[in-house]
Amino acid sequence: MTGSVNSHEILIMPTQNMSKGDEAYAVSAAIPLTAKGITLIFGRQSNEERKLEEGIDAGNKEFGVVGGEALIVFEDVFVPWERVFMCGEIDFSGMLVERFATLHRQNYGGCKGGVSDIIIGATALAAQYQGTANASHIKDKLIEMIHLAETVYACSVACSAMGYQTQSGAFYPDPLLANCTKHNITRNIYEISRLAQDIAGGIMATLPFDQDLRSSEVGKYVKKFLVGVEGIPTETRMKILRLIENMTGGTCMVESMHGAGPPQSQRVMYQRLGNLPQKIKWAKTLAKIKDE
Amino acid sequence: MTGSVNSHEILIMPTQNMSKGDEAYAVSAAIPLTAKGITLIFGRQSNEERKLEEGIDAGNKEFGVVGGEALIVFEDVFVPWERVFMCGEIDFSGMLVERFATLHRQNYGGCKGGVSDIIIGATALAAQYQGTANASHIKDKLIEMIHLAETVYACSVACSAMGYQTQSGAFYPDPLLANCTKHNITRNIYEISRLAQDIAGGIMATLPFDQDLRSSEVGKYVKKFLVGVEGIPTETRMKILRLIENMTGGTCMVESMHGAGPPQSQRVMYQRLGNLPQKIKWAKTLAKIKDE
Amino acid sequence: MTGSVNSHEILIMPTQNMSKGDEAYAVSAAIPLTAKGITLIFGRQSNEERKLEEGIDAGNKEFGVVGGEALIVFEDVFVPWERVFMCGEIDFSGMLVERFATLHRQNYGGCKGGVSDIIIGATALAAQYQGTANASHIKDKLIEMIHLAETVYACSVACSAMGYQTQSGAFYPDPLLANCTKHNITRNIYEISRLAQDIAGGIMATLPFDQDLRSSEVGKYVKKFLVGVEGIPTETRMKILRLIENMTGGTCMVESMHGAGPPQSQRVMYQRLGNLPQKIKWAKTLAKIKDE
Amino acid sequence: MTGSVNSHEILIMPTQNMSKGDEAYAVSAAIPLTAKGITLIFGRQSNEERKLEEGIDAGNKEFGVVGGEALIVFEDVFVPWERVFMCGEIDFSGMLVERFATLHRQNYGGCKGGVSDIIIGATALAAQYQGTANASHIKDKLIEMIHLAETVYACSVACSAMGYQTQSGAFYPDPLLANCTKHNITRNIYEISRLAQDIAGGIMATLPFDQDLRSSEVGKYVKKFLVGVEGIPTETRMKILRLIENMTGGTCMVESMHGAGPPQSQRVMYQRLGNLPQKIKWAKTLAKIKDE
Repeated sequence: MTGSVNSHEILIMPTQNMSKGDEAYAVSAAIPLTAKGITLIFGRQSNEERKLEEGIDAGNKEFGVVGGEALIVFEDVFVPWERVFMCGEIDFSGMLVERFATLHRQNYGGCKGGVSDIIIGATALAAQYQGTANASHIKDKLIEMIHLAETVYACSVACSAMGYQTQSGAFYPDPLLANCTKHNITRNIYEISRLAQDIAGGIMATLPFDQDLRSSEVGKYVKKFLVGVEGIPTETRMKILRLIENMTGGTCMVESMHGAGPPQSQRVMYQRLGNLPQKIKWAKTLAKIKDE
Repeated sequence: MTGSVNSHEILIMPTQNMSKGDEAYAVSAAIPLTAKGITLIFGRQSNEERKLEEGIDAGNKEFGVVGGEALIVFEDVFVPWERVFMCGEIDFSGMLVERFATLHRQNYGGCKGGVSDIIIGATALAAQYQGTANASHIKDKLIEMIHLAETVYACSVACSAMGYQTQSGAFYPDPLLANCTKHNITRNIYEISRLAQDIAGGIMATLPFDQDLRSSEVGKYVKKFLVGVEGIPTETRMKILRLIENMTGGTCMVESMHGAGPPQSQRVMYQRLGNLPQKIKWAKTLAKIKDE
Repeated sequence: MTGSVNSHEILIMPTQNMSKGDEAYAVSAAIPLTAKGITLIFGRQSNEERKLEEGIDAGNKEFGVVGGEALIVFEDVFVPWERVFMCGEIDFSGMLVERFATLHRQNYGGCKGGVSDIIIGATALAAQYQGTANASHIKDKLIEMIHLAETVYACSVACSAMGYQTQSGAFYPDPLLANCTKHNITRNIYEISRLAQDIAGGIMATLPFDQDLRSSEVGKYVKKFLVGVEGIPTETRMKILRLIENMTGGTCMVESMHGAGPPQSQRVMYQRLGNLPQKIKWAKTLAKIKDE
Repeated sequence: MTGSVNSHEILIMPTQNMSKGDEAYAVSAAIPLTAKGITLIFGRQSNEERKLEEGIDAGNKEFGVVGGEALIVFEDVFVPWERVFMCGEIDFSGMLVERFATLHRQNYGGCKGGVSDIIIGATALAAQYQGTANASHIKDKLIEMIHLAETVYACSVACSAMGYQTQSGAFYPDPLLANCTKHNITRNIYEISRLAQDIAGGIMATLPFDQDLRSSEVGKYVKKFLVGVEGIPTETRMKILRLIENMTGGTCMVESMHGAGPPQSQRVMYQRLGNLPQKIKWAKTLAKIKDE
């Protein structure tokens, strides 16, 4: 669903383990987006109208506009047999979901680690523009943001490093650590965003429209009273604050929570992969408890 | 600034302690919003265009539209002498700020405690509509949200209960506990919102437009595929999800962070009011350390 | 159980709701500790042998020695009828437990708020003795400790302020806020202790014995190399570090967790007292959802 | 210092960056522990007297007794020239400290990850013995503990995987991620311990002495009233609870905080290695801010 509107082809697959009677839903295939019978109903995103404007409020159209999820409806879509990957094999639908989820959870630490680096940079810059960059609590919060971002990145690296080659020749990340990666993201990105909003200041949410900045009537006020430190005009300050606003609220956050599966799906995997019996055995040895 | 556009009068006052040379800024006065020379430049809020629409996405116009901050510019505004409360008294500007901040921080626990109650109710309802309300992790997260909301409410009650009557006859809350109230809000509201987004699901951020629901072309799909549990049509589900979206992201969050002063301003007050010397004295007594 | 060994009388009561068939356990009575048939088996506490020593490691015998829990065994203990408060009234055992728990959870914020104040004072003093008190991160951590302590104290105040007078004439705190008090303690005290151990430094856990300080052979080394800042001898520094050690680890922590009921018992109360239906009703009003 | 008392040789090295005038302290050497002039004053540990006892309370003497820090005093110790690694080279003392710290912080995730696995196993076992293992909140807390343990382990793997070979042929971990590893430990181990104490129950801190269990007078009570679920005698239950007690309090915790450097030392490294200028550059590109 994510990114489907700007894709050449879309891939469908089951979303859960299946059992006898579910055969009709145990299907996977690749289909051109333009195939007859496919309808995409695009989700409404935070502040989406702004992207149709000109100026600062529109954000960066080269990089910022393509994401987005769609409700994809199939109605009598023809799929050539050579593009069908699963058709009724219920025994493998659970494994397929788990494989997909593991790979998706692996790459989240790289994706959101990178997103976090941008937020950290933008926040540090906003602090410079607003003259607070040297306050010890600002520096400490930026350090905390770096810590949280490096943690999710480290998890992504770890599940990759501990991965292995499957019989097919492809590499597969360590599933426990891949789930650990995504689970940290469902928390750390929220805290990074909270700290970004702390440092950016209330101005982030009270900023006038770009049209006000350019208005012949009130533009002079916006330029004068919302100016940054020496050499930083209001316009430059607004640019960085709008970037932080876009990256720390709304759709972005929900995507960090639910993309690649909600938190509880990772916790289910912890229960399955956490190997409590082995941990209990070690504890018994140290506590000198003999198995009966 | 907050709520000024729909007020009869606005009140201006200093925002910090002042010293010799700052007399021109040590002013406080009440002015009708319509006074000559006042310009309000309204801030751009999250998803503000939606409020001009009809239908679900517009939200609740009776209750949800009035907040909002404005950049307020004064240019040769005449203020009758009887509405001037401070004019150059630099010795009192610090006290005035502190008094105002204390009262504002006190009431945040009531305000945001109430807001949280709505978010909790909306989230519980979304879980019911989506069939997840009986999962133990959902119930546990709702309990956590209640705990966080009750904590901010408790702080508001506590600073009120420990308040005292000033010579003027007015009551003044305990300033240390009032700061404690606001400081918890800058954290708990973010965590409450995070949990709401966890429970509400990815659908919260991928929901189609209200126009799509009503579309003669694709409305049937939205109605069919995004329906809730038995008896809950898509429309009802969309209403509650849009409410959660509105209350857990964007402007609302920044306001919880910075309204009544940013977190660091509360920490400065902890340093001033925390009375470390008394705490050190108690510790010395217990550790049998005699003062030299 | 807590404090029983140094009490004149002990009070027994049920620990849970009871139903038909449990009559023999629905009993409450007051009994002198010295009554025939009572055996107390004292629990083993952290570092309890130190209390039998002389010198710094023994801690403060006037204030620090009396706590402690005992396994209390009753074997054919005679209880005069006038000291029996409940005898088989299963319908009231649940209410009795809830009343007791509410009052106990109320006072935890005062108790542990005070304990926290001592820990904060001791930690601030250790920082002074060790020359780190002016570092911005030390000051910030002390502020955080104050915030966490004031939060538990505020909850205690709030549930008292919102309490009411029962028909008996006694006052009863607000049960939801009383549970909120205790629930915060099961978290905040641990975080306060963690920060105390951060500031106190590794020396807290590597400190030599008091006998080493006084040893004719190695005492000179301990005095020379573990000295504090100018004017603070090793002995004074050791006193405050041992106090922090005693208050931030072992038995003390478990008591913060489980005294007046473990965390889950408060969460059960949140589920019962949190009034989700009312919150759902408010959310429905705002989202314009009509009850069917 | 750690483990010195049971080592053949000890290694000394500088603990900070040095400058002109510090030459006499810029020394590194290996010395046999038995060399003339070396005095070790062993630190007092939590519950150290128990290790001299027989029975459950003594813990596991094979594995649990060797750690421990000592104040090590040098007085005219002769060091043969071939065992001196640094002697006045102030330019390299900072680098030496950083290298040592990076390697030490790297391995903490493996060490404390393993320690955490034991705590998790012991806690799961205690829950089984006490009949609470199937409660959903117990299972959820164990999952949380696994998540926290896997996170520190993942960081250790990541800094190793991103390491590189130095000119000497030795491998060196990524310093930023090594600091990330240790920084997570200063938090996660405390939370893991808190959750272990939550699940283990108040009994962990109120458990009688091993001698009481074996007492001819009161042993029968301890055996009867503190028994576990069917088939688990009091003795077995006590063994696992004492293990949890030993691993979640006192010296162990402080060591997690300060071993390989206190939290602030990692934050200083974040400031140096976090590369804010690069992050700012990326943010500028996205926000379309041109460098002047």
